[in-house]
Amino acid sequence: MRIYTKNQIEKAIDIPLLITEIERGLIYYSKKQTMIAQSSFLRFEKPPGDVHIKSGAILDDEFYVVKIASGFYDNPKLALPSSNGLMLLFSQKTGELKAILLDEGLLTDLRTALAGAIAAKYLANHPIKKIGIIGTGTQAREQLFNLQFVTACREVLIWGRNPAKAKAFSQDLRFSSFKISLAKEIEEIPQNCDLIVTATSSKNPLLFGDQLRPGTHITAVGADDYEKQELDSSVFDKADLIIVDSLSQCSQYGDLAHVKDIQNKPIMELGAFLEKPKIRHKHLITVVDLTGIAIEDLQVAKAVFSSLKSIYKGDK
Amino acid sequence: MRIYTKNQIEKAIDIPLLITEIERGLIYYSKKQTMIAQSSFLRFEKPPGDVHIKSGAILDDEFYVVKIASGFYDNPKLALPSSNGLMLLFSQKTGELKAILLDEGLLTDLRTALAGAIAAKYLANHPIKKIGIIGTGTQAREQLFNLQFVTACREVLIWGRNPAKAKAFSQDLRFSSFKISLAKEIEEIPQNCDLIVTATSSKNPLLFGDQLRPGTHITAVGADDYEKQELDSSVFDKADLIIVDSLSQCSQYGDLAHVKDIQNKPIMELGAFLEKPKIRHKHLITVVDLTGIAIEDLQVAKAVFSSLKSIYKGDK
Repeated sequence: MRIYTKNQIEKAIDIPLLITEIERGLIYYSKKQTMIAQSSFLRFEKPPGDVHIKSGAILDDEFYVVKIASGFYDNPKLALPSSNGLMLLFSQKTGELKAILLDEGLLTDLRTALAGAIAAKYLANHPIKKIGIIGTGTQAREQLFNLQFVTACREVLIWGRNPAKAKAFSQDLRFSSFKISLAKEIEEIPQNCDLIVTATSSKNPLLFGDQLRPGTHITAVGADDYEKQELDSSVFDKADLIIVDSLSQCSQYGDLAHVKDIQNKPIMELGAFLEKPKIRHKHLITVVDLTGIAIEDLQVAKAVFSSLKSIYKGDK
Repeated sequence: MRIYTKNQIEKAIDIPLLITEIERGLIYYSKKQTMIAQSSFLRFEKPPGDVHIKSGAILDDEFYVVKIASGFYDNPKLALPSSNGLMLLFSQKTGELKAILLDEGLLTDLRTALAGAIAAKYLANHPIKKIGIIGTGTQAREQLFNLQFVTACREVLIWGRNPAKAKAFSQDLRFSSFKISLAKEIEEIPQNCDLIVTATSSKNPLLFGDQLRPGTHITAVGADDYEKQELDSSVFDKADLIIVDSLSQCSQYGDLAHVKDIQNKPIMELGAFLEKPKIRHKHLITVVDLTGIAIEDLQVAKAVFSSLKSIYKGDK
């Protein structure tokens, strides 16, 4: 059994490789060649903290994964990051623990961002003229950072509730290759951007159907439980194509769960789309609703573990 | 963050202390002063393996626990134990990982056995004349071993499907202080024993209501998922008092889940009983149905971590 720290894990991350592995995993998932357990949630109040536990496997594969990821939102007051967690890889044949990845939430943040990058790669209206980011937290930044692997567009408009955080985001050296402007009003995002990513923990809708222009693509990644919502149900009424990471999960929680007549909507799973990807029509409005699935954790954990083993070959 | 191996954990186990801590946890649970997530299950077929993931916390306590426990039933063919797993303790205030207990399933087996010991301590017809054990696997042995902390009775009758395994159990040196006989037919168990423990992975009932004599107590610990069953529903018809570890869980799976008219039965949770324990009437028939709850994992992990910290004080 091997244990790796966050520092070691950071050195083993290869974004294009992880994108490929997550795409493969999503296809397995939509083909129902996976076993994914019902997720477990814990929610603490004093101080506020969420814990998500996801587990799963590809059938007849080597490993199964258990992933624990938490967000404790008062942590920055203690000079601690909000995100934390780890990933565990076990043998699917004997139950033996094979690897502990002490990623402190890094890999969960990353795989969520890469699912967003995959959505943009296949569904946005390329070439993208302007990227709009709604949100200024860790995940908003991860989304923007990883879009550089799937589009040449570097024009960005950011909106966040907290102007100071939005300004800090725009000045972050990590984004020195981007040209970032700040939106004063959230409406400027749908008015000016053809790729919009929402990555907030909002409990009320931020985007509405009547704001959307033809050719717009939206990826919503913030709403990952029962209480959260970023997209008004009118966004889904306006969409020509709706893609979700998991039909079963997105009908339970996330943005799409607020829509009443799901059956009559043009919906498919991302993995099913990836199996036979089609080029989008320029004038369409497309929406991708992501809630996060264990298959993404599994694929990232497996790929990172494989790299770590070759990097730290001699170590015990 | 501290990591402890199975060898270290074994040295930190204090059975009477753990019994007290689990009792306290069960009371918190039944008073609804806990947060327990829905359990996650994975079930593999080739080779057969079950994985149970449980998580939870006492409200306003220091920690939350995530426990992964697996049973891979072909492992003995590879000279590996069937059980495996680990327990993780996190800060309930920040989400930080505080301890990894690499117990390889030991603590799950133990806390299940101790829940059985607690059931016998409070509900069996003391003084017990003869203990009947149905099952010959790891959990059957753990149940018998830990009964020595709650009863002076050392007379035991064992039944198992596999006579060779039953014989090996009876000759196990760990049980040299017990007087163990083997039952040829399962019926001999209810005919001769006043405390019966069932600890099998049976999918069909093994005990029936018409076999039970007044004064008998049964603890059923084997049926911990949807497919398993050890007690026929007629056992619950015959019972004067039915105790479960978790009303919500036992109405979903385990033995009691096979009973149709649960509402009309004399049922209560073990934690509620422990809060105001009553001495049983001699002639009653009592049944305890245990499916395992995260609060037991939490209490064992916390107590063992606390002991480990004081034993391995100087270590880093």
